[in-house]
Amino acid sequence: MDTILSHAFVSEILGTGMLVLLGTGVVANVILPKNKGFDGGWLLINFGWGIAVFSGVYVAFRSGAHLNPAVTLGLLAADSPFATLTGPEGVVTATIEPTVSNAFWYILAQLIGAFLGAVLCFLAYKKHFDEDADGATKLAVFSTGPAIRSYAWNFITEVIGTFVLVFVILVFGKTPSGLGPLAVALLVVGIGASLGGPTGYAINPARDLGPRLAHALLPIRGKGSSDWAYSWIPVLGPIVGGVLAGLAGAAYV
Amino acid sequence: MDTILSHAFVSEILGTGMLVLLGTGVVANVILPKNKGFDGGWLLINFGWGIAVFSGVYVAFRSGAHLNPAVTLGLLAADSPFATLTGPEGVVTATIEPTVSNAFWYILAQLIGAFLGAVLCFLAYKKHFDEDADGATKLAVFSTGPAIRSYAWNFITEVIGTFVLVFVILVFGKTPSGLGPLAVALLVVGIGASLGGPTGYAINPARDLGPRLAHALLPIRGKGSSDWAYSWIPVLGPIVGGVLAGLAGAAYV
Amino acid sequence: MDTILSHAFVSEILGTGMLVLLGTGVVANVILPKNKGFDGGWLLINFGWGIAVFSGVYVAFRSGAHLNPAVTLGLLAADSPFATLTGPEGVVTATIEPTVSNAFWYILAQLIGAFLGAVLCFLAYKKHFDEDADGATKLAVFSTGPAIRSYAWNFITEVIGTFVLVFVILVFGKTPSGLGPLAVALLVVGIGASLGGPTGYAINPARDLGPRLAHALLPIRGKGSSDWAYSWIPVLGPIVGGVLAGLAGAAYV
Amino acid sequence: MDTILSHAFVSEILGTGMLVLLGTGVVANVILPKNKGFDGGWLLINFGWGIAVFSGVYVAFRSGAHLNPAVTLGLLAADSPFATLTGPEGVVTATIEPTVSNAFWYILAQLIGAFLGAVLCFLAYKKHFDEDADGATKLAVFSTGPAIRSYAWNFITEVIGTFVLVFVILVFGKTPSGLGPLAVALLVVGIGASLGGPTGYAINPARDLGPRLAHALLPIRGKGSSDWAYSWIPVLGPIVGGVLAGLAGAAYV
Repeated sequence: MDTILSHAFVSEILGTGMLVLLGTGVVANVILPKNKGFDGGWLLINFGWGIAVFSGVYVAFRSGAHLNPAVTLGLLAADSPFATLTGPEGVVTATIEPTVSNAFWYILAQLIGAFLGAVLCFLAYKKHFDEDADGATKLAVFSTGPAIRSYAWNFITEVIGTFVLVFVILVFGKTPSGLGPLAVALLVVGIGASLGGPTGYAINPARDLGPRLAHALLPIRGKGSSDWAYSWIPVLGPIVGGVLAGLAGAAYV
Repeated sequence: MDTILSHAFVSEILGTGMLVLLGTGVVANVILPKNKGFDGGWLLINFGWGIAVFSGVYVAFRSGAHLNPAVTLGLLAADSPFATLTGPEGVVTATIEPTVSNAFWYILAQLIGAFLGAVLCFLAYKKHFDEDADGATKLAVFSTGPAIRSYAWNFITEVIGTFVLVFVILVFGKTPSGLGPLAVALLVVGIGASLGGPTGYAINPARDLGPRLAHALLPIRGKGSSDWAYSWIPVLGPIVGGVLAGLAGAAYV
Repeated sequence: MDTILSHAFVSEILGTGMLVLLGTGVVANVILPKNKGFDGGWLLINFGWGIAVFSGVYVAFRSGAHLNPAVTLGLLAADSPFATLTGPEGVVTATIEPTVSNAFWYILAQLIGAFLGAVLCFLAYKKHFDEDADGATKLAVFSTGPAIRSYAWNFITEVIGTFVLVFVILVFGKTPSGLGPLAVALLVVGIGASLGGPTGYAINPARDLGPRLAHALLPIRGKGSSDWAYSWIPVLGPIVGGVLAGLAGAAYV
Repeated sequence: MDTILSHAFVSEILGTGMLVLLGTGVVANVILPKNKGFDGGWLLINFGWGIAVFSGVYVAFRSGAHLNPAVTLGLLAADSPFATLTGPEGVVTATIEPTVSNAFWYILAQLIGAFLGAVLCFLAYKKHFDEDADGATKLAVFSTGPAIRSYAWNFITEVIGTFVLVFVILVFGKTPSGLGPLAVALLVVGIGASLGGPTGYAINPARDLGPRLAHALLPIRGKGSSDWAYSWIPVLGPIVGGVLAGLAGAAYV
């Protein structure tokens, strides 16, 4: 790894860590017993995840803030640069090219960050994890699960949700605004509100797989299955959706 | 159709499709059984539709992002350009004129997009449509219906709501900001919160008619009537409101 | 009136009308029977009023968008211009001076606009006003009332709320941003959330008095008292708060 | 104190006062009896505190708007200027250096402001404080308390929450946007949603200690203990989190 890529690697770890800490955190707050935000509603969860993305994007300022293998693979499919870094005067100082090798490092960093973010969430909510709650609830803090289990239809929902995420990100640049990272934050609030009902909107393989690994490894009192049978849906669905969006975006934009 | 108009045609299809997918999606999430956002409240629905507009506007960057026949006809009434397209340096490279012929293509694209968006929502929520729920609930995912049926007063409510939408859009340009598409998104959140109580704020003939057609044609388990008796209200009300706003805006701005 | 003042007069009527239509509308949606937003919660009301201000500010682009006698009198107390109008190149083309005569016309326009906005809200929600509900509920769509009646403490709450409104508006200019009218919209959401509990945050004499007049005059089925005994609190409290904030702002900024 | 520091001192008092008035106000609205926002939910509290920060940042335009000893000490640890003040043309006119002496004055101002803001909240909600409610509820308007009391784990939660706050503030500057104070407001909404469940997110020693002092001193009907046994957690936790974030930020940014 050269310096620029290693900086991007760190950025993706920290940014995805921030994303997953705040994202799993809002779920913990709403579903674990005795929390002040207990039963706080779906919109609270949507805003929590939206601002999790918002914060993660700021943190990952050296990598283009993918924070999501579906975004990385979507850009790879679109042959679009992973990051364009600018100096103080706004001139482009470096570009990270969309290669398979770079994609590998990005995705590895995202998984590491997601794992660490979930561990931090566990620490922040430790006493609430110690309370009685069924194993499925404790897993739901970490990873998504279907409202109605149906691998085919759950897969389709994740494909559609991630397509929306990556396709709209690809058209953001065509309409200038001063919103910065707020645009993608609002998009994520909207995807959660509008397409999160059936599967809990993973729309990001790292966001789901990293915390699921953390769930499997952490000493969580009374934890149940990590539901590996379902785990490939929130990985493969987002990848398919992201790549389709990358191709569609390359054709349209 | 010349190239610019055909690009705008595609943009209106994709943008209105995005709008309706995310808009009908949030209603599905809140009212169809077993969804994670079930019974999530009116503000959730308002934000879902607001961000649906937000996303659709970004997608439709080649058409001026009408996404709504009431906007198209309001601009036609105001004799205001449908779209002013700019190149990389911000110079105007093309204008789409407000003619009856262009309005026809815009509205056709909006209807096609709205139909397709509703089909995608059906696919994303397929297993939840399969659950038991009365026919009126399943229709309500697709199209609006009155809280208290009264064609005259429901019509007036839609006229007022759409007047607000189009009139405020026409004055947006007089106060510069960096909000971009967020301004219209917030406006739609507000119209839903403030004027959506009696009729569910269609304020857009394509948003209501396209999905109603989809409801009529799709193989939805246990579906009931598509309520064509009411269907002209959310078409004619918004058209009247949009044209009045176009005329008022042309006089005021 | 010269041309500039007469334009501002129309702007204040239209802007305050928009503010009050959307503001009273969200209350109607939440408290009148059978509405789709019925019982939608305080945050829904806060966002409804915030976006009501947002929309009204855009509409009133020729008057500086006071929309509120407390703002007008606060600026008069601070000897700060009522409006600074700019041409296409951003150059100042006219200033509306803070005189007693101009303040009179502004406040008259605000009252007219608030009255008309309330009438439009009545029309939009006509069938829901026809439903059975007690008279206090129907009045509460139009005007504020105290949670615990105590003229002295209700007065103090309105003074504090309006002080916050006008003082923060006066410091907005010291921190540049691209938020435009969103800044004041968020401020109003916040005042409602944080200081609206005891009195329902009139923080604007026109917003309360204009709709109260409309309530007294409109043929509302089953309406009760217009509660004139309380009506001076949401007029005098905001005026005192606004003037104090104007003086404090002039000393601080 | 020279003129610039004394101006900053006043700015921190006023800004922190605004922050705490609106922040404690939203809690009063949601938890004190008979309020219009009673039982309004966690998201309402999160938005109330977010906009409290938003407003306080605008007010404190002469001090860099720390409003929080954890921010001040974080910047001190990072050896980063407390404030960079610019003139009308955007040129830097003064810098407030990160010295221990300056930090002392900043923190003193923050405590004074937080105390005064809590007093104003008491006045705005006086009649609701007079209602029957248990002492812990009345204290909870002023200061945070744990959902599950555990000094070690409560401390860790406050460290994590404040680390997120200060670290993300330090990276804000690397991604330009037109959001201004909205960025930090959204961040605070997010921290409340995602990390506020166990301890109520003090994440600011002044925000907790100033109002706790006010609680101890004010003549609140039926008040109970000020819970000084817990009071060091929301002071020390945020200080540790802020300093760690300052050091991490200095290494990363």
